[in-house]
Amino acid sequence: MRRDMFQSEIEMNRIFERLKEAEERIERLSLLSHLGQILNSTLDHQEVRKRAIEAATQLMRAEAGSLLLLDEEGKYLFFEVALGDKGESVKKVILDVEKGIAGWVAKKGEPLRVNHPERDPRFYKEMDERIGFKTRNILCVPVRVKDRILGVLEAINKKGGEDFNEEDLSLFVSLANQVAIALDNARLYQELEEMFFQTAASLADVIEKRDPYTGGHTQRVTRYSLAVAKYLSLEPEELRRLRIASVLHDIGKIGIDDQILRKPTQLDTREVDLIRRHPKMGAEIIGHIKQLKEIIPGVQYHHEHINGKGYPEGLMGEGIPMIARIVAVADTYDAITTDRPYRKALSKETAISELKKGSGTQFDQKVVEAFLQAFHSGEI
Amino acid sequence: MRRDMFQSEIEMNRIFERLKEAEERIERLSLLSHLGQILNSTLDHQEVRKRAIEAATQLMRAEAGSLLLLDEEGKYLFFEVALGDKGESVKKVILDVEKGIAGWVAKKGEPLRVNHPERDPRFYKEMDERIGFKTRNILCVPVRVKDRILGVLEAINKKGGEDFNEEDLSLFVSLANQVAIALDNARLYQELEEMFFQTAASLADVIEKRDPYTGGHTQRVTRYSLAVAKYLSLEPEELRRLRIASVLHDIGKIGIDDQILRKPTQLDTREVDLIRRHPKMGAEIIGHIKQLKEIIPGVQYHHEHINGKGYPEGLMGEGIPMIARIVAVADTYDAITTDRPYRKALSKETAISELKKGSGTQFDQKVVEAFLQAFHSGEI
Repeated sequence: MRRDMFQSEIEMNRIFERLKEAEERIERLSLLSHLGQILNSTLDHQEVRKRAIEAATQLMRAEAGSLLLLDEEGKYLFFEVALGDKGESVKKVILDVEKGIAGWVAKKGEPLRVNHPERDPRFYKEMDERIGFKTRNILCVPVRVKDRILGVLEAINKKGGEDFNEEDLSLFVSLANQVAIALDNARLYQELEEMFFQTAASLADVIEKRDPYTGGHTQRVTRYSLAVAKYLSLEPEELRRLRIASVLHDIGKIGIDDQILRKPTQLDTREVDLIRRHPKMGAEIIGHIKQLKEIIPGVQYHHEHINGKGYPEGLMGEGIPMIARIVAVADTYDAITTDRPYRKALSKETAISELKKGSGTQFDQKVVEAFLQAFHSGEI
Repeated sequence: MRRDMFQSEIEMNRIFERLKEAEERIERLSLLSHLGQILNSTLDHQEVRKRAIEAATQLMRAEAGSLLLLDEEGKYLFFEVALGDKGESVKKVILDVEKGIAGWVAKKGEPLRVNHPERDPRFYKEMDERIGFKTRNILCVPVRVKDRILGVLEAINKKGGEDFNEEDLSLFVSLANQVAIALDNARLYQELEEMFFQTAASLADVIEKRDPYTGGHTQRVTRYSLAVAKYLSLEPEELRRLRIASVLHDIGKIGIDDQILRKPTQLDTREVDLIRRHPKMGAEIIGHIKQLKEIIPGVQYHHEHINGKGYPEGLMGEGIPMIARIVAVADTYDAITTDRPYRKALSKETAISELKKGSGTQFDQKVVEAFLQAFHSGEI
């Protein structure tokens, strides 16, 4: 009887142990599911990378996490490591794919768990020295989408002095798969976005090609606008609209005859009227694109003046959308500092003094101030 | 002593029960994580919807799953339901948001578990009649991203005659969150893609605007090309390239002077030479766009002939990329059937007989055959 009791107690303890493990596993799987949602909630590649490192650290209860991405030729790993729970210290390093545990995993495509790196010949201890960190143990798994290895995900130094176990490794492989999917979606999105911007820029290019005097105008206006925007604390979404509006601001010029665009002498009233129709025509062209509706004001009103003496509507002050006020200043600066059919380029100083002179009448004062800041800091 | 034994047995059974439940939970959480990966592995909205319904059915061990998406005004739910494990029978229905359990969940934004729908006043039993289905019990949860409700996800009739429990509901809410993220990413991607296509189409439009005779040419060529492609079993990626190449095939015309484009009389040799430069110039323009590299051949070679007598390279047969061969046929058909500066539009019959005449010399035989199939089936 005694013996039976004793045995069933051992049995019970064992089952208790299994229950505890199962409950711990449930907790971590729930966390994995939560982290997967966070990873996939953005299509910004940089943000996915940041979240991946945080997720690796949190899920693995590790001191540090890192994500190493292969370059296109598969020769180097670009290394982002976050030390500490909140990733307070982020370091960027480049690693030869022939070196280290990460290199081995990236080449072989197999996950690795190393609890005594100093005994593993693959361990590249110079990296610890470079980033000022002591690696005690490490989990390193491939980040793979379909059959393509994008890089590796690492968790370094399990907290509480413990070693990583097989359960950690299997959970970490699941996390890496989620990271791979989120990275790939973000890459696809950003490639498409770039394709859109490039196509919009080509649209501007082909328009410029007809007018030898404006070569590069769109590109410069876009650059100036974005430099100015830095000093105006725009929202990311507004910044995106500003970029598109800058690229497309002169698109309406496609509707103006070659002869007028290229005329080297003074334009007559009829010709000036025709030229002045380009903001409105540009707005009509992009008006056909549902997704560009929010860009229309930037294109349509980039020749309005703060005092209401601009065109096409004669809008005043705050009635002119911010994006259009920024493009107006950038556009004018570029027009002054480049050759025109009717005169040579003027100096930067002349342009700056023109902007100052027009501040508060033709141009928005805040925008001119931001322009001057960007100019004096060398960004323009 | 007996009593102790007995008690510890009860205790042990209880722990066993908890362990069994925990292990079952682990299995389902692992499945949830796996389904989340599948959901997020595509940016195709339709595919996400399909996978969401399958995931709902599988994870909930239900007889049917459905996804109901709100329209933009939030008045109707668009209803896709799959009956059976493999979704062999998919039905589409529109439901007033004021009606049914789904409508209530979409409006309230709260999850609902109903095990006796016939006793619930919110239950809309006409729907069962419409789709020929008997609802025994139902889980219905909001699909929400940030603070926006996109719709609701449903699991209907738990298998084995059981009722849905609280655990089912909580797991289902997690799944719905993953569905929401995947749907939102797919929507963002497809909106951006549409913006790209629209911008590319505007680029074509502005070029056409300079030449009154070609109004709508690009749109028609794109439509014809895609109709032809149906009979040539292209890969989805090739289809996408064909669409872009069709839209941009004449983009090089931007570099040709207005006077030549609009000239109503016969062109001289120099003018013909200039016009013939447009495929090459188009290729150069899109050559600046990294993401459009694969489209170049479609633009550059749409005036090549199968017998090598086309331009700019004089490529022959299979040496001409398939996309270019398709655009060539679509382009010619449209040129014949519309007014030109130098002649009125000719009949469809004339165009068809021209294509047949050129089949195997100017045009790819397979493409002409596909064109004829599309033509006779009324798609062109």
